[in-house]
Amino acid sequence: MHCRGHNNASPISLFFYEQNKDFNKVNTLYFSMVTLKDIESAHDRIRPFIHRTPVMTNQNLNILSGASLYFKCDNFQKAGSFKIRGATNIVEQLSQVELDRGVATTSSGNHGAALSMAVTRRGGKTKVVMPHNTPQMKVNNVERNGGEVVWCDPDQPSRERVLGELVNKTGATVAHPYNDERIVAGQGTAAKELIEDYPDLDVIISPVSGGGLLSGTLLAAKGMKPEIVVYGAEPSEADDAYRSLQKGEIVANETIDTICDGLRAQIGTITFPIIQKYVDSIITVTETEIIEAMKMVWERMKIIAEPSSVITLGALLKSKDRFSGKKVGLILSGGNVDLNQLPW
Amino acid sequence: MHCRGHNNASPISLFFYEQNKDFNKVNTLYFSMVTLKDIESAHDRIRPFIHRTPVMTNQNLNILSGASLYFKCDNFQKAGSFKIRGATNIVEQLSQVELDRGVATTSSGNHGAALSMAVTRRGGKTKVVMPHNTPQMKVNNVERNGGEVVWCDPDQPSRERVLGELVNKTGATVAHPYNDERIVAGQGTAAKELIEDYPDLDVIISPVSGGGLLSGTLLAAKGMKPEIVVYGAEPSEADDAYRSLQKGEIVANETIDTICDGLRAQIGTITFPIIQKYVDSIITVTETEIIEAMKMVWERMKIIAEPSSVITLGALLKSKDRFSGKKVGLILSGGNVDLNQLPW
Repeated sequence: MHCRGHNNASPISLFFYEQNKDFNKVNTLYFSMVTLKDIESAHDRIRPFIHRTPVMTNQNLNILSGASLYFKCDNFQKAGSFKIRGATNIVEQLSQVELDRGVATTSSGNHGAALSMAVTRRGGKTKVVMPHNTPQMKVNNVERNGGEVVWCDPDQPSRERVLGELVNKTGATVAHPYNDERIVAGQGTAAKELIEDYPDLDVIISPVSGGGLLSGTLLAAKGMKPEIVVYGAEPSEADDAYRSLQKGEIVANETIDTICDGLRAQIGTITFPIIQKYVDSIITVTETEIIEAMKMVWERMKIIAEPSSVITLGALLKSKDRFSGKKVGLILSGGNVDLNQLPW
Repeated sequence: MHCRGHNNASPISLFFYEQNKDFNKVNTLYFSMVTLKDIESAHDRIRPFIHRTPVMTNQNLNILSGASLYFKCDNFQKAGSFKIRGATNIVEQLSQVELDRGVATTSSGNHGAALSMAVTRRGGKTKVVMPHNTPQMKVNNVERNGGEVVWCDPDQPSRERVLGELVNKTGATVAHPYNDERIVAGQGTAAKELIEDYPDLDVIISPVSGGGLLSGTLLAAKGMKPEIVVYGAEPSEADDAYRSLQKGEIVANETIDTICDGLRAQIGTITFPIIQKYVDSIITVTETEIIEAMKMVWERMKIIAEPSSVITLGALLKSKDRFSGKKVGLILSGGNVDLNQLPW
């Protein structure tokens, strides 16, 4: 577990590092900034098109954990995950010309479905580059929302190569799944709603993959309540964010052999500096701990949350002492699970 | 499908038939009556101990069904099902002497867990007679709530014999899972909450097994809104309520070979007359239709509902025309599923 002590930093304005295609070099300051105000604007923009998802509590899990847990249920969100927040924030800002060229992205599934939903609503076409080992359910979800799937290999270089070829050929507008300020601002609205509903939270735990959700959560949470503690939860088997923080620069995933199909992406050049500046700690969680947490959420809470979501509970349960007696918000980021391939 | 036209009957007061141990003879008027006022009193009595469960909607399922669906989520209820409503209504009315003798019941699982929870809270002991083919999850649920399981064979005579022996030996107070007026009044509080939240419902669909939930639903719904239509949903493979209505008297289940482990009981002598008088129709649902509905609820709504619950959606989807354009309340009665034994 890697700890950082930036509790007192104010995110009122934040300079970004330049978006850089070489993941190992993130050192040029970017002139743009995302603020809490951007998250508020994003919220106003996307509110008509998304659910304000409920926050659930569970007495059993409170007793088991020794903390008071508040689950932000974006597994109930439109298209099945928080991704509709950022995707809608991008799509609603596209010009008609951009939209007419088509919209393209790479996605492990949830962003692709969400983007397709947002683009289809505006009458446009979406192409989604997806790894061929994506759960069938997530493929169906893209297609049901009007998107077209383009296959790639399940690694970062293949994703980018296939997307690049696609864009060169069609001139499509790219809506990146996380490394985009509009995405960061959109994803931050989940934590904003959570804190509006429960202003006395002590801690928030968010999953981390490419970092869109965690960076948005950090900007919203620390902007609204500077003393709040925010943790990222990351699979031990895809721990690039954890190791990048340790090293002080972005390093690549060494494995992505995790059940969390939504957490296999590489931390982004826009999201990493935000995480680096504000996150209190990243907690890595083993596959066994993730599966145990998943079964616990399903059995006790009676809701379907995907592995990439329940990792937040896994992180909490493996570090109970740290959360004892605290009010903890956990972002359940999505509920798109292939019911024919459950891990038990 | 069996239809009856009692829409205009008022349930303000209702004479019951005498409780009779011979299921084939239900013809003596019983002097007691359950009214909407009893349901209101039950609600006041149990309110501190139960959740007011949420009502969920789902755009996908609305489009698919051509109706507006309102799911009353008692799968999120304490102990995982609506059963805590009736059980609490009994237990809170027991004298200390009755409680001290211990409380006993037969149960397919959910009533046993709920009763155990209610009795344990008052400091008493519970013995639950359960068929040996009960899903492990429901056994765990009884034990987790402080109950002790006593095994029987999975048929009505064995249930009653084992319970009878137990009562003779220990003098325990019996809290029947459905054939008790206090149970009927308690279970009616689910429909009461649903109609309070959505007063403009046209229809309610409730599962039917022993009839506690359906009879309570009928008394609450038709008492609050006489013009509302109420259907029961019953497995084709355990269709005693459907056939009893056809015949005009209680007949036994011919098979109980259904995935709905909560719907294998025999319609009761107290519940049947209420159902006979007020229900508009009972819709029987095949195993395939139940499993399809279950997968649909899990995939689209992201919630865990047990087969005995989702049968309400199965009933609706097989008779779409009847519900077209209507506002339909569906009681999702429970969420206790053995995740290691899913039907797909």
